[in-house]
Amino acid sequence: MTKSVDLNADMGESYGPWTMGDDAALLDIVTSANIACGMHAGDWDVMADTMGAAHERGVGIGAHPGFADLHGFGRQRLKMPIESLQNLVRYQVGAAQGMARAVGGAVRHLKLHGALANMASEDERMARACYEAALSVAPDIIIMVLAGTAQQRAATAIGCPIACEIFADRAYNDDATLVDRSQPGAVIHDPEIAGPRMADMVREGAIITGSGKRIETRIDTICLHGDTPTAVKIAAEVRRALEESGLRVSKFDGAPG
Amino acid sequence: MTKSVDLNADMGESYGPWTMGDDAALLDIVTSANIACGMHAGDWDVMADTMGAAHERGVGIGAHPGFADLHGFGRQRLKMPIESLQNLVRYQVGAAQGMARAVGGAVRHLKLHGALANMASEDERMARACYEAALSVAPDIIIMVLAGTAQQRAATAIGCPIACEIFADRAYNDDATLVDRSQPGAVIHDPEIAGPRMADMVREGAIITGSGKRIETRIDTICLHGDTPTAVKIAAEVRRALEESGLRVSKFDGAPG
Amino acid sequence: MTKSVDLNADMGESYGPWTMGDDAALLDIVTSANIACGMHAGDWDVMADTMGAAHERGVGIGAHPGFADLHGFGRQRLKMPIESLQNLVRYQVGAAQGMARAVGGAVRHLKLHGALANMASEDERMARACYEAALSVAPDIIIMVLAGTAQQRAATAIGCPIACEIFADRAYNDDATLVDRSQPGAVIHDPEIAGPRMADMVREGAIITGSGKRIETRIDTICLHGDTPTAVKIAAEVRRALEESGLRVSKFDGAPG
Amino acid sequence: MTKSVDLNADMGESYGPWTMGDDAALLDIVTSANIACGMHAGDWDVMADTMGAAHERGVGIGAHPGFADLHGFGRQRLKMPIESLQNLVRYQVGAAQGMARAVGGAVRHLKLHGALANMASEDERMARACYEAALSVAPDIIIMVLAGTAQQRAATAIGCPIACEIFADRAYNDDATLVDRSQPGAVIHDPEIAGPRMADMVREGAIITGSGKRIETRIDTICLHGDTPTAVKIAAEVRRALEESGLRVSKFDGAPG
Repeated sequence: MTKSVDLNADMGESYGPWTMGDDAALLDIVTSANIACGMHAGDWDVMADTMGAAHERGVGIGAHPGFADLHGFGRQRLKMPIESLQNLVRYQVGAAQGMARAVGGAVRHLKLHGALANMASEDERMARACYEAALSVAPDIIIMVLAGTAQQRAATAIGCPIACEIFADRAYNDDATLVDRSQPGAVIHDPEIAGPRMADMVREGAIITGSGKRIETRIDTICLHGDTPTAVKIAAEVRRALEESGLRVSKFDGAPG
Repeated sequence: MTKSVDLNADMGESYGPWTMGDDAALLDIVTSANIACGMHAGDWDVMADTMGAAHERGVGIGAHPGFADLHGFGRQRLKMPIESLQNLVRYQVGAAQGMARAVGGAVRHLKLHGALANMASEDERMARACYEAALSVAPDIIIMVLAGTAQQRAATAIGCPIACEIFADRAYNDDATLVDRSQPGAVIHDPEIAGPRMADMVREGAIITGSGKRIETRIDTICLHGDTPTAVKIAAEVRRALEESGLRVSKFDGAPG
Repeated sequence: MTKSVDLNADMGESYGPWTMGDDAALLDIVTSANIACGMHAGDWDVMADTMGAAHERGVGIGAHPGFADLHGFGRQRLKMPIESLQNLVRYQVGAAQGMARAVGGAVRHLKLHGALANMASEDERMARACYEAALSVAPDIIIMVLAGTAQQRAATAIGCPIACEIFADRAYNDDATLVDRSQPGAVIHDPEIAGPRMADMVREGAIITGSGKRIETRIDTICLHGDTPTAVKIAAEVRRALEESGLRVSKFDGAPG
Repeated sequence: MTKSVDLNADMGESYGPWTMGDDAALLDIVTSANIACGMHAGDWDVMADTMGAAHERGVGIGAHPGFADLHGFGRQRLKMPIESLQNLVRYQVGAAQGMARAVGGAVRHLKLHGALANMASEDERMARACYEAALSVAPDIIIMVLAGTAQQRAATAIGCPIACEIFADRAYNDDATLVDRSQPGAVIHDPEIAGPRMADMVREGAIITGSGKRIETRIDTICLHGDTPTAVKIAAEVRRALEESGLRVSKFDGAPG
């Protein structure tokens, strides 16, 4: 049986008069789109346009909630009471559902953004609170988690549908954490390296670290970036390499963890 | 058969560190709550708390969308392309649905806020666009309209469930418009007048103007205010007067217009 | 004596994670920069960076206040009480002064932005209120006005230093108003036309309309745009054409109107 | 010679449609007002009104900058690059100067707000960066510091005018830190205790801790609160107690630390 993998990217991060990223180009590459929900980026029109375009192309629509911090793009770690954090997630998932319904689609998955995602990858209780909040609004939502982190543990403990994610352009340490951006080689800019590397990981069902170590992992989706022309080019190359290596690129199925 | 009428009020208009109105007191008086959706007032926590409290008391939960203008409280008339206006409504209705679902409830009705409501009461096309946007997200939502305005005409043309509203504390002109606030007697501050006046209008199924003229109108709900201690007192008095006059105070049923 | 003219452009319109325009390129072309003050665009860092870069190049620093409408980029016409409008202008001029002082510079001129500018060009009372508010904070500020409009009349009535502006890329009607953007030829995209046309107007001290009519006008500065690569190219061509025609490009001197 | 002490309170914390605190009452009690600058609270109108009222009563006008976090009221600890933090302070000090000038007054002092103040009381480098930023915009500004903290050390190291502050309603530990709010007795609600306690501290030039220990400290000003009717009552009682004990209540003179 042909192995398959999903490709996802953050999208819909423009706001009012400001444009970010090349969503149109990315939508021709990815199979799942993580769409900002108006708190750290995105607005009602950007959401509608992005969801409409995703729906037309058969790309899975994901709610991509973040902290309510437009100026900081959701990258500030904010301390919020758990109940308040849950309300923040519920609000954004609900808004995303409304926008998706209006374009004839539906929110298929959830992926946390920025500092919210970083905190949830370290703190299982917080991750679980966010996921349960999303599920309270959208009971069938597939939770996208960063493979090997507290995110994955939290979603697995809940027993809900999940999609495990690895990064196309980031090197991994031997403990499955990402190599810090300050280190040489932390970010992989060369599409000729990124593509085959992803194909290897998906085929082997393992994260391959900088030292060559294999860490067995469920891999459902690969995170791509589209914030620069180079990033879009890498994204396209990764997709080509995966397909050339005999893998099928298609939406994750959301089996529980 | 006993005639019945609904009582509604705007609620959930606090934001972050700032409190507005006495929602707890109002929730013991009204049967429907118009809850701000985070754009002109309200935030995720305020919405959750207000919806939770409304749901507990059996008060109908309404989405109360407004222009995205926190500082101006949604009172500025903004010119938006129709499609953008619809997205703005969809976003807020979706968010409200998400929050309502999380407290075990559901959004039952829609009422437009502030300048958005004022513009929609004058412009049938705009009203219709807003209502169709809400219905695209929440197909069963009951549209609350200001009796005798373009709001009512728009919702009636759509054929959706509606609830026709009159004001407890505002005098009417002979053409069914509200007496301008700059005129003497425009706002009715005396609960002993407001209560019996409302009872008369509901029993007669007519707006009674300043001159005593009767304008036959469907009346499903009466709009109360709760932004001041006096307003809450008037609200309570109106309810008492209605009940003493033999009317039943209960949620509107949302028959089409 | 060689005639001279100033070139101005709006700048500092990025915000948080979002970039707008190519300020670095524009700063090599213009002699005055209208820098957004954080209400419709710009933030504390963008202001500091833009003002610092302008100051280094000897480009005049201008406060460019707009309505407090980030999502709408200050393009919505808002109705504000005059006193509130004045406070809004004062706040932004004060903030601009603080930022300018910190980079070793000073705010030299004021130019209103977007809808605020449009309203002020039609309403002398409103224009005057804005200018007097700016002068109450910065008594020596030069008021940049759109030639031939209520802006110019308001500033002239005050008797303060002014700089009269014409547009490099907009055609004029015979009554000195701008040709509506919906009309063919309203916007001049061809740098080979825009440049010589500006040189002619400055030399003749007159607006030259589409029909060839001359309307005598004080011309101190020409408004350029830099929001697209084409716009930057036009800007550079206009400057070259002015210099080739023997005009000097330098900051306006701010004589009273 | 009669000892004197200043009384200060945070003010101008309303925003748009929302009111906070009873500034009018407080302005009759304090001699210095810390006025929010529009980032965590306050807006252009609130600033103008509060500064105007302070100026009329001879109350010292202070800029009270905080993090740009309206929803969180500046209480979230945000990590910002030092240069960006400085720009944020400069912006707010500049805006405050503009507003003060327009009411015929001037910004006399600076006091940091909320999480920004808390972080600066622990981190001398950060405190110094904020103060130097303020001084780069307003060279004569008096820096109000929390006695015995990194704030005081930073301002003393700069050598600028300072005002050392103690809290009227908070108990102190033996190391001069505040008793944590979670501890019994941390907050002093009884005006009959707060008043004489402050009089003792000012007369002795020392913080008196819960155990009765004296920690010699420069005391220029006492921080009062006015966010509740009780708080205003305590504030008035503290002033009365100070005056009855023979102390003079007047603005600090801002001698360097």
